[in-house]
Amino acid sequence: MAGSSFGNIFKITTWGESHGKALGVVIDGCPAGLSLCEEDIQVYLDRRKPGQSRISTPRREDDAVEILSGVFEGRTTGTPISLMVRNTSQISKDYSEIASCYRPGHADYTYDEKYGFRDYRGGGRSSGRETVGRVAAGAVACKILQALGVTVCAYTRSIGSIEIDMHRFDRQAILNTPTAMPDTAADEAVIGYLEAARKAHNSVGGCMECIVEGLPAGIGDPVFEKLDANLAKAIMSIGAVKAVEIGDGSKVSSRLGTENNDAFRMKENEVTKTSNHAGGILGGISDGSTVVVRAHVKPTPSIMLTQQTVNQSGSDIDISIQGRHDPIIVPRAVVVMECMTALTVLDAMLINMSARLDSVVDFYKR
Amino acid sequence: MAGSSFGNIFKITTWGESHGKALGVVIDGCPAGLSLCEEDIQVYLDRRKPGQSRISTPRREDDAVEILSGVFEGRTTGTPISLMVRNTSQISKDYSEIASCYRPGHADYTYDEKYGFRDYRGGGRSSGRETVGRVAAGAVACKILQALGVTVCAYTRSIGSIEIDMHRFDRQAILNTPTAMPDTAADEAVIGYLEAARKAHNSVGGCMECIVEGLPAGIGDPVFEKLDANLAKAIMSIGAVKAVEIGDGSKVSSRLGTENNDAFRMKENEVTKTSNHAGGILGGISDGSTVVVRAHVKPTPSIMLTQQTVNQSGSDIDISIQGRHDPIIVPRAVVVMECMTALTVLDAMLINMSARLDSVVDFYKR
Amino acid sequence: MAGSSFGNIFKITTWGESHGKALGVVIDGCPAGLSLCEEDIQVYLDRRKPGQSRISTPRREDDAVEILSGVFEGRTTGTPISLMVRNTSQISKDYSEIASCYRPGHADYTYDEKYGFRDYRGGGRSSGRETVGRVAAGAVACKILQALGVTVCAYTRSIGSIEIDMHRFDRQAILNTPTAMPDTAADEAVIGYLEAARKAHNSVGGCMECIVEGLPAGIGDPVFEKLDANLAKAIMSIGAVKAVEIGDGSKVSSRLGTENNDAFRMKENEVTKTSNHAGGILGGISDGSTVVVRAHVKPTPSIMLTQQTVNQSGSDIDISIQGRHDPIIVPRAVVVMECMTALTVLDAMLINMSARLDSVVDFYKR
Amino acid sequence: MAGSSFGNIFKITTWGESHGKALGVVIDGCPAGLSLCEEDIQVYLDRRKPGQSRISTPRREDDAVEILSGVFEGRTTGTPISLMVRNTSQISKDYSEIASCYRPGHADYTYDEKYGFRDYRGGGRSSGRETVGRVAAGAVACKILQALGVTVCAYTRSIGSIEIDMHRFDRQAILNTPTAMPDTAADEAVIGYLEAARKAHNSVGGCMECIVEGLPAGIGDPVFEKLDANLAKAIMSIGAVKAVEIGDGSKVSSRLGTENNDAFRMKENEVTKTSNHAGGILGGISDGSTVVVRAHVKPTPSIMLTQQTVNQSGSDIDISIQGRHDPIIVPRAVVVMECMTALTVLDAMLINMSARLDSVVDFYKR
Repeated sequence: MAGSSFGNIFKITTWGESHGKALGVVIDGCPAGLSLCEEDIQVYLDRRKPGQSRISTPRREDDAVEILSGVFEGRTTGTPISLMVRNTSQISKDYSEIASCYRPGHADYTYDEKYGFRDYRGGGRSSGRETVGRVAAGAVACKILQALGVTVCAYTRSIGSIEIDMHRFDRQAILNTPTAMPDTAADEAVIGYLEAARKAHNSVGGCMECIVEGLPAGIGDPVFEKLDANLAKAIMSIGAVKAVEIGDGSKVSSRLGTENNDAFRMKENEVTKTSNHAGGILGGISDGSTVVVRAHVKPTPSIMLTQQTVNQSGSDIDISIQGRHDPIIVPRAVVVMECMTALTVLDAMLINMSARLDSVVDFYKR
Repeated sequence: MAGSSFGNIFKITTWGESHGKALGVVIDGCPAGLSLCEEDIQVYLDRRKPGQSRISTPRREDDAVEILSGVFEGRTTGTPISLMVRNTSQISKDYSEIASCYRPGHADYTYDEKYGFRDYRGGGRSSGRETVGRVAAGAVACKILQALGVTVCAYTRSIGSIEIDMHRFDRQAILNTPTAMPDTAADEAVIGYLEAARKAHNSVGGCMECIVEGLPAGIGDPVFEKLDANLAKAIMSIGAVKAVEIGDGSKVSSRLGTENNDAFRMKENEVTKTSNHAGGILGGISDGSTVVVRAHVKPTPSIMLTQQTVNQSGSDIDISIQGRHDPIIVPRAVVVMECMTALTVLDAMLINMSARLDSVVDFYKR
Repeated sequence: MAGSSFGNIFKITTWGESHGKALGVVIDGCPAGLSLCEEDIQVYLDRRKPGQSRISTPRREDDAVEILSGVFEGRTTGTPISLMVRNTSQISKDYSEIASCYRPGHADYTYDEKYGFRDYRGGGRSSGRETVGRVAAGAVACKILQALGVTVCAYTRSIGSIEIDMHRFDRQAILNTPTAMPDTAADEAVIGYLEAARKAHNSVGGCMECIVEGLPAGIGDPVFEKLDANLAKAIMSIGAVKAVEIGDGSKVSSRLGTENNDAFRMKENEVTKTSNHAGGILGGISDGSTVVVRAHVKPTPSIMLTQQTVNQSGSDIDISIQGRHDPIIVPRAVVVMECMTALTVLDAMLINMSARLDSVVDFYKR
Repeated sequence: MAGSSFGNIFKITTWGESHGKALGVVIDGCPAGLSLCEEDIQVYLDRRKPGQSRISTPRREDDAVEILSGVFEGRTTGTPISLMVRNTSQISKDYSEIASCYRPGHADYTYDEKYGFRDYRGGGRSSGRETVGRVAAGAVACKILQALGVTVCAYTRSIGSIEIDMHRFDRQAILNTPTAMPDTAADEAVIGYLEAARKAHNSVGGCMECIVEGLPAGIGDPVFEKLDANLAKAIMSIGAVKAVEIGDGSKVSSRLGTENNDAFRMKENEVTKTSNHAGGILGGISDGSTVVVRAHVKPTPSIMLTQQTVNQSGSDIDISIQGRHDPIIVPRAVVVMECMTALTVLDAMLINMSARLDSVVDFYKR
């Protein structure tokens, strides 16, 4: 089925494979009148671009985005925005040896079972490179959210057992450290840890977090379209994510009610909460405090150490995966998480505009 | 927006409030020819019914389901199946005192912000009672899955710090213990813990888990409609769930690749895995092993202890929540998790039927 | 698949069969704060109710609607509105003789081919009685449109070869004549024509029209969600409709450009058109003039005259259809057309609220 | 909102403007394993390509399609197929004079009202050139339908008052005549008529028809997803279409039941109909006979004769539209109708696969 679309009003459809001609996204439902140029999008794509540091795959791609439609005289027209990034550095021979076997932790086997065959070059559609389209679309969503006073910020929370210290939180560091950590001390500790893993031909997992600030109360819809439910889907749909938490997340299961409820208090004539265990969402609807989402990411499954697996002919074999791979997925996935969060929140905000009859009447009777 | 529908081919739409006339669900897209009667559904509803043990709210509801359409001569006709449960034991005066204030941990404030007012009786649509429709529909999904050789089984994994021992796993115990634990020893330990919490006028959190067995490889769709992404949405949409994990879940973020990859090996001419850290899903598509999903549930927010909050007039107040409340949400939510998982898996299986052209040709050329 | 839902933001899901226990609809996405009671809906249902005149089936149903959810203290809450009408006058034995044969012009054969069997009582889900849910939901849509200054009005345009004279257009007559014609002279002529058809045990076709006034320019979306495309779907989905026209409709195919273009002219500082061949829609988007939709409805397929057909065992047989049938579908379908038009227009208006970025910013920055 | 997507399982999203960089479509949900190359698609695009005859705009575009993703080693992979056609012959200065005024019969005014401004170059997104994406996707749908034994064939039925004679029906002529008529005699008569219209600086309307052969009974879903309802939407969404008919269409409204019902008869052990007034659809579901759809298309609104209109500053003006325009839309729209019909029918066939439980069980238990 059509699994490459996300969103209701602000809806994106991504396409493309790791080693195909190009990757891209069509954004349909973008409000008209947004000032938009390629540079707005490029800065986001550059954050997920490979080959930028020692802890990232040496594959080099410019990932230069082209706006093909939907923008006229520098502004969005309300019609579909088609964005494309050409692949330029495919080295398909890297992957020829794995064409006929199933790499552990990858989608080779499951794609073959589903479709009968697969584009094996670099993982095809199941490659992390698929996220190019998400990030290009997310950049547009972020720009709109900015106009609405909402900021979305994702970062690396931990790698292996090394966690950031929130007291040292430094937003600039997210963009400046190779780990995308907002804490330069933790970043330095991680670099050593990653170096050791790389030398051991191994890979490591990590945790990333995303916060949404400035979101008004009332966003999200009851029952199945809860804001947290849609965030969970959005984030879990990122390859290698195995757990999603909202607010205090998994900690709540061992708590007492008194420890977990957030008290309401008035502050400068506004309803506020004295704590934020809930992560900014109550009953699936934003409560006006910071939304907090967390994702646990597995270690890169491609490792050079010898692993047991089977081939397409049904024989047990051993493999050692060569090719260009990140030893850790998280630093480059952080911007993907930021973008998926932005897409989810923006769509919920657009949907929310018709929640009250008086708003609808206002809109049409002005 | 329309937030009360779930699924694509097998699509459900739930309706109803805690203290309204009735609750229900319309199932649209159920394949024709399924033998179905009210008793098939009632056994699932009885598992979430209140008033069945000391650890559940004393509110008594028969939750007797009525099939209003879509079944003829004992079989589904392919047209919408409308299921309804009348509310019979609403005591709206219980809630009158909280009509004008915002209970901590509840959706009172967020509904008011979104809609301008709310049905405050028992939480209205944000009540756990909303899940009656989900369970009624899930019972139908489970019956179809059974015909396809797929079983879905949810249970309580932990309450507070007391966790089940998987070596003592006893499927019958899930239905027979008040905690819905598959381990009678753990169940007994929990009962004492809950009694203490109740006496302290407090509530506790817990963790529930769901396993899907017999699911063939190839189910789920790439990118945004991944099986794990849809499970995350389905489970996170259950009230009070704050974290969702697939397979080893949050543990993966501190692991090495060698610890986390599952090796493939041939076994009796079938591709199998020697471990299941992945929880049965690779690249968003089932791999033929057991699917494992876990959810962390916060403590019941309604507690009798005095809490700080604000009222609708914007004054700080103290409240102590009276009324009939479960001290722990998990035992009654287990069947909801089972049903949401079944709905997700069934829909993905129906969608999967058109994944390959040769299957489509087979279907129409036979 | 799920074929019983309509709309995106204001979304309805209908259910029920002609001779089942009940029929109904769930409206999801209705803006909160609409004053709504059962009487608001009943007046619409009464317009399609059977048994009201000599030209309608003698089956008597009160079609009394019950609001089961989504309304609190007389106002919609923003959560699903469940509406139900109990069937009270099913005479299933009327239909027993046709259980095993395929009535010409009916869906008996096609349902059997699709689903393997069917609820044959009164046509089951394919009965015109299915429209009860549409009308109940449409009544709510009409009430909202009224608050937005938009009126929707459908009427019978012709029956057989007898057409209304637009110069005699009398809106009150629509509700007062048995034919739902806005022209009492035409109505009288039709009554005689229908009487003759009835005596000949035959049935007749007709044409109905719907106009939408007060609709602002800018409603509808480009390409596939054009306002006229969605109207065409909405109206063609009504049983027995075989053609849908917008504005001058089929006449345009034999015209010259000079005859068909509507000139624009300024009038009191407003852009207006000097004619309305286009029926109020240009490029799929409303242009501010009256929207005009027309539907051609086939004669009731159930006739008492002997017809050739086949039975389920594959033998040629003759049948004469007994039971209670309208000799003409149109008069009772007029309110269905009005409701489907209202549902389409309202949904398009709600969707339109996010078309421009400045409106979105206004909404959230006020 | 997102208005540029069509279909549920086989879902397309089109993008691009008349004078933008490119136009294209993403097909998501195409079954895996279809042999597909650019030439398969090019033959369909060539049928709608401009500049091929005297009765078509002299604008010359190669409309060369590029497959950017979703095909590997000559076969579809089940992942999104991105197709792109670069614009090469934009002459934007042609349109500069109409940048600030509203052409009668065009969407200039309605786009401005909706979005606040518009891409005025060649009509932007509202141009007939938007159908490039539809045709590219429809070519793929047609290829799959062929594998399923279903053929879709559209042709010009009439232009002005000149109609084809069905007794002279010649399928080859559709591709060989400039009018796309299956009747060379009618084609010749039309050429003279068009020449006269062109000399008079006028334009003409016409009617096109599409037949679907080989479609099994049982396709389409009850109530809102009826096959005829979805065809009506699909065809009415083509620019300039003002009426859609199924089978005998608008003629049914002046008929008697005896004239309109199609009798069933057994023929070689198959259920057949002795006539096909219904156009192959009963109760919204295909009945196994030929599906017949007809569309009435208005005259090209762009004419060189002077017309009254207004400009964006709100002044009455006169305009004479220069530029390169077809005097008649129909011949090039025929392949668009064929493609939209194919997309609708294919999607309905894929959806139908889960209609019966026994088919689902068969699929998974084999």
